[in-house]
Amino acid sequence: MEFDLIELIRTRCAVQRADVRLGIGDDAALLAPPAGHELAVSTDTLVGGVHFPFATSAHDLGWKALAVNLSDLAAMGATPAWSLLALTLPEATREFVAEFIDGYAELAAQHGVALVGGDTTRGPLAIGVTVHGFVAPGRALRRDGAQAGDLVFVTGTLGDAAAGLRCLDRRDTRAQALFNAPPDTRETLVARLNRPTPRVAAGAALRDVASACIDVSDGLLADLGHIAERSGVGIEIDAGALPASSALLTLFEREERLVLQATGGDDYELAFCVPAARAGDVQRDLARIGCGATRIGRVVAGERVRLFDGDGSELVPERSGWDHFA
Amino acid sequence: MEFDLIELIRTRCAVQRADVRLGIGDDAALLAPPAGHELAVSTDTLVGGVHFPFATSAHDLGWKALAVNLSDLAAMGATPAWSLLALTLPEATREFVAEFIDGYAELAAQHGVALVGGDTTRGPLAIGVTVHGFVAPGRALRRDGAQAGDLVFVTGTLGDAAAGLRCLDRRDTRAQALFNAPPDTRETLVARLNRPTPRVAAGAALRDVASACIDVSDGLLADLGHIAERSGVGIEIDAGALPASSALLTLFEREERLVLQATGGDDYELAFCVPAARAGDVQRDLARIGCGATRIGRVVAGERVRLFDGDGSELVPERSGWDHFA
Repeated sequence: MEFDLIELIRTRCAVQRADVRLGIGDDAALLAPPAGHELAVSTDTLVGGVHFPFATSAHDLGWKALAVNLSDLAAMGATPAWSLLALTLPEATREFVAEFIDGYAELAAQHGVALVGGDTTRGPLAIGVTVHGFVAPGRALRRDGAQAGDLVFVTGTLGDAAAGLRCLDRRDTRAQALFNAPPDTRETLVARLNRPTPRVAAGAALRDVASACIDVSDGLLADLGHIAERSGVGIEIDAGALPASSALLTLFEREERLVLQATGGDDYELAFCVPAARAGDVQRDLARIGCGATRIGRVVAGERVRLFDGDGSELVPERSGWDHFA
Repeated sequence: MEFDLIELIRTRCAVQRADVRLGIGDDAALLAPPAGHELAVSTDTLVGGVHFPFATSAHDLGWKALAVNLSDLAAMGATPAWSLLALTLPEATREFVAEFIDGYAELAAQHGVALVGGDTTRGPLAIGVTVHGFVAPGRALRRDGAQAGDLVFVTGTLGDAAAGLRCLDRRDTRAQALFNAPPDTRETLVARLNRPTPRVAAGAALRDVASACIDVSDGLLADLGHIAERSGVGIEIDAGALPASSALLTLFEREERLVLQATGGDDYELAFCVPAARAGDVQRDLARIGCGATRIGRVVAGERVRLFDGDGSELVPERSGWDHFA
C-alpha cells in the first residue's frame, strides 16, 4: 500500500527539473545545486487540530503545507527549487492522498518546485515539508539587518486568515453574526486561511533593498519581534495603518479587527524594513508585480515591538502571536 | 516557550561548519554546497507508537531519529553534512528536549553533521529529520544498478533490532524466556533497536564498487525487493548464510531467528550487490574499516527476491517487511 501511494504522489506531482539527477524512489534524492549560489533550506510541519482544523479539505491541506514553506523561502528572497514531503496519515485513503497531492502539485507547478523525496507513515495526521531554494551569496533577506530609521512595511492585508478561522469555529461567540455574513465574504476569509499565497516574487523584488524581512506566520507583532531581537532594534507600529481587506472591514469592528491584524497568524504576508530613502522604489517595484505594500511603522533604537494608536497611546493586544506550547 | 526550546536545541547541538552561512534563527538556513558535487537529500519521520515504543528514552530517540536518516545517506555513499529537525511534542518538557537533543548531538558530532534548522510544534509525538550529504557526480550508490551475476552482501548482523523489540514487548508469548535471558544479551539486542549505527564509512567504501545498495530499514527481503524492482532483476538469498549476532543465536531458535533476520526491520545495515570479480576487494576494504560483510546471495535474471533453505527449497516468511499502512 505505501508503495502505491508513493507512486501516486510521484506521478501527480510532475514538475521536472534538469537539476534533479535522481528523484523519488531511492534512499535519497540526488540534486545538483547551481554553482555560485547559496542554498536556502527550511522545514515546517502542520499538525492536524493544531495548525489546521481536521475538517480542512485534503486539497487545501496540500496547497497550504507547501505554501507555508515557500513563504519561508520568500522571506529570504530565495527562488524555490526542490521539496520533500513527509506525510503522516491515520489511514491510507487513496482518495485523500490524491486530493492532497493535487493541491500540493497545483502550487508546486506555479513555482516550478520539484517534489524530490519524502516518506509516508502511519500516525496522527501531520504534514512535514522541507523546501530548498537558491539565492546569490550575501543577497538573502535576513532578520538581523534592520536599523533605526528604517521604515516598516507589510505586503497585502493582515488578519484575514485568523478571521477565516473564526468563521469556521462554531463555538465562537460571534458565530451567528459570522454565519449570517454574505457567503462570498466568509469564503474570502476562509480561502486566505486555507490557500495562502507565498510572496515569492515580492521576496525576490526585495533583495538588495530590504534591510530585514520575515513572513507573518505567527502574527505580525510576534514576527516583527524576531526582527527586533535579531537586529537589536525597537519597532513602532501604527495601528491605524495596518492594511485590512474589505471582507475584514465588513465583518469585524475596529477593536476586534485590530487584534486579528496585529496578532492573527497564518497570513503569510512579508513584513520588512527598508531604509527611508528606498521606500518609494520598493513600493513601485512591488506594485509592478501586482503586490501592494503598506507602510505600517518604523524602526527605532530600543528593543521591542510596540503598537500605537492614532493618539499616541500604546495598545497591548491580548497575545502577541502563537506559542505552540502556551 | 517555543523560542527557549529552540535556543536549547541550538546551543546543545554545536557542530560548526564553514559551509553553514546562516544556521538556526531565520526563516531558512543558508548553506554553501561544495562546487562540483551532488547533494543527497533524504527525510524520515519517526512516529511514537508506530516506529518506536513510547517508553523509548528521549536520548535514544534523539540518536535514532538522526541515525535512520544518516543511514539513508550511507546507502547512497554520501558524506553527511547538514540536518534539519522537526520535533512534534505533546507538551514541551525542557528535560525531554534536553535529553533528546543530547542523543541527537552525540551522533551528529561523530559525523560532523550541523543542525541548521527545523521547527518545534505541539502535537502527537513525532520526529521528522531531513539530512543532506555530498557525493561526487555519478558516484552515488543507487538501487537500480544490480546485474544478473552480481553477488549480494550485507554488513553486520540481521534481526537484532526486531529481536530487541520483542524483548521489550511484555505481551510477547515468549516474553518469559526473553526476560529470563542474561541481561547483557537482552541489552545488546535492545541497543541495536534504539541506537542503530548508520554505516556511513561502509557506504563511502562501496562507492565505485557496489552496483546497487540499500539500507535495511523495513526488513531484508522487502528492502532487497526494491533493488530487484528498480534494477529489473531477481535476487536469491541463502537463508543459512544470513549473519546472526551471538545474542540472537542465544535467545532464538532457528526458525524464529530466520524470520527476524529476513523480515525484521530497523537493522540499518547496508545490503548491496557487487560484481563477482570485485567481491574480494569489497570484503577486504570493509574489513579495513572494521565493518564485516557477509555474502548472502546472488542476483539472477528474473523479478523478485526469493529465500532458499540449504536443501534448495524456497522459504516464504510470514511477511516480507513493514508496510506502515498494512
